[in-house]
Amino acid sequence: MEYMTGRAIEVITRAEYVIGNDSYLDPIKPLLAGKQVIRSSMGKEVERAKKAIELAVSHTVAIVSGGDAGVYGMAGIVLEVLEHSGAEIPVEIVPGVTAANAGASLAGSPLSGDFATISLSDLLTPLEVIERRLDAVFSVGIPVVIYNPRSHGRPHNFALAIEHARKFYPATVPVAIIKNALREDQSDPVITTLGEIEKVIDIIDMHTTVIIGGSESRIWRMGNHVKGIITPRGYHHKYVY
Amino acid sequence: MEYMTGRAIEVITRAEYVIGNDSYLDPIKPLLAGKQVIRSSMGKEVERAKKAIELAVSHTVAIVSGGDAGVYGMAGIVLEVLEHSGAEIPVEIVPGVTAANAGASLAGSPLSGDFATISLSDLLTPLEVIERRLDAVFSVGIPVVIYNPRSHGRPHNFALAIEHARKFYPATVPVAIIKNALREDQSDPVITTLGEIEKVIDIIDMHTTVIIGGSESRIWRMGNHVKGIITPRGYHHKYVY
Repeated sequence: MEYMTGRAIEVITRAEYVIGNDSYLDPIKPLLAGKQVIRSSMGKEVERAKKAIELAVSHTVAIVSGGDAGVYGMAGIVLEVLEHSGAEIPVEIVPGVTAANAGASLAGSPLSGDFATISLSDLLTPLEVIERRLDAVFSVGIPVVIYNPRSHGRPHNFALAIEHARKFYPATVPVAIIKNALREDQSDPVITTLGEIEKVIDIIDMHTTVIIGGSESRIWRMGNHVKGIITPRGYHHKYVY
Repeated sequence: MEYMTGRAIEVITRAEYVIGNDSYLDPIKPLLAGKQVIRSSMGKEVERAKKAIELAVSHTVAIVSGGDAGVYGMAGIVLEVLEHSGAEIPVEIVPGVTAANAGASLAGSPLSGDFATISLSDLLTPLEVIERRLDAVFSVGIPVVIYNPRSHGRPHNFALAIEHARKFYPATVPVAIIKNALREDQSDPVITTLGEIEKVIDIIDMHTTVIIGGSESRIWRMGNHVKGIITPRGYHHKYVY
């Protein structure tokens, strides 16, 4: 809960019902005492949203997502279902630290300037659309944060994304692999390059965020240690330091 | 401070020195009692980073940025200057809620899926690079969060960005204008469209975040009220609700 905002803690504390997946509910256990807790599961997002709106007609309901609810989280589907229901219920989206920013904070400053986030899950987006998006952002050299990089259901999408990156970038472009960022089971981020990524590809799973640096990103070292990635914003063109 | 994480509050509380602009220091005044506070100003980022590293050799120093320090914030330049100095000083980047997520939370769910952030400041990035990036992301229909949309020094960059959007999008694509998101002087977000943006362009300044929806984004209504933007993730292709 160290990385939740005060506002997020407050609205959960005030709610009568709290709805979410186990993986989002377990870390906030201290906030759940005395509440009605509804545990849902992956793939049941529409059902979860419907249930929440049904309850929200007469109760205060909090739906929890990991990271930021507005980014690959529950905010969108809740609003879609709410709009479709025609109910006029006050709703507040509480922002949070999304995996892009959580992951970046552990890997130096890879997203200092412009960046894009792209999910490799083709459950809701056709794979060819994802490929076109990857090409578009790689073609202009901005860092990309990969969400949902690899799962049992789609073991090949990540390798495909790397193929696309290699069309535009040299092997030296840095890549950060961050597993369970800012969660209890967080492991040290792995800093590698596009050329060497195959050596570590097996550690990538659904709980991993991958940041592929942009054309100006480079490895950040302290002494002899590789510490992360720096994407300079361009101060070095203007200042001496 | 309601939208700061517990960790951010903790590290500032523990610091001996706190360095930042007035606009970032004023909202955290309650945390600053008894500390050495160094007030810097816009455009002095390199100087601020140097000062922080100089002090950090023998003190605990916190540098505050608005939003997330890793996104158009101080993290990058601090690491660049630190690396250049050769000093081996422990450094922690504390992630936060960046303006993209703060702004989106007030405007429905415009960033439900893939998105990009692009700054229109051409102080450190050439304007033609910014234009190419805009075209690339508009060409694949993903929502774009515009940082630094308009200032006295560059009144025309925002209109130029809109011209680029119009090459790819119909006039119906929704746009959200969010001023001082989640700050004390926050105003209600303005929800408009690409076709009507000129009517409200004057309210856009340096403290504004603009979200230009993607090809699938639409206006979100509750009853007769325009409430924000929804970018559906595609659940409607798979589920009935």
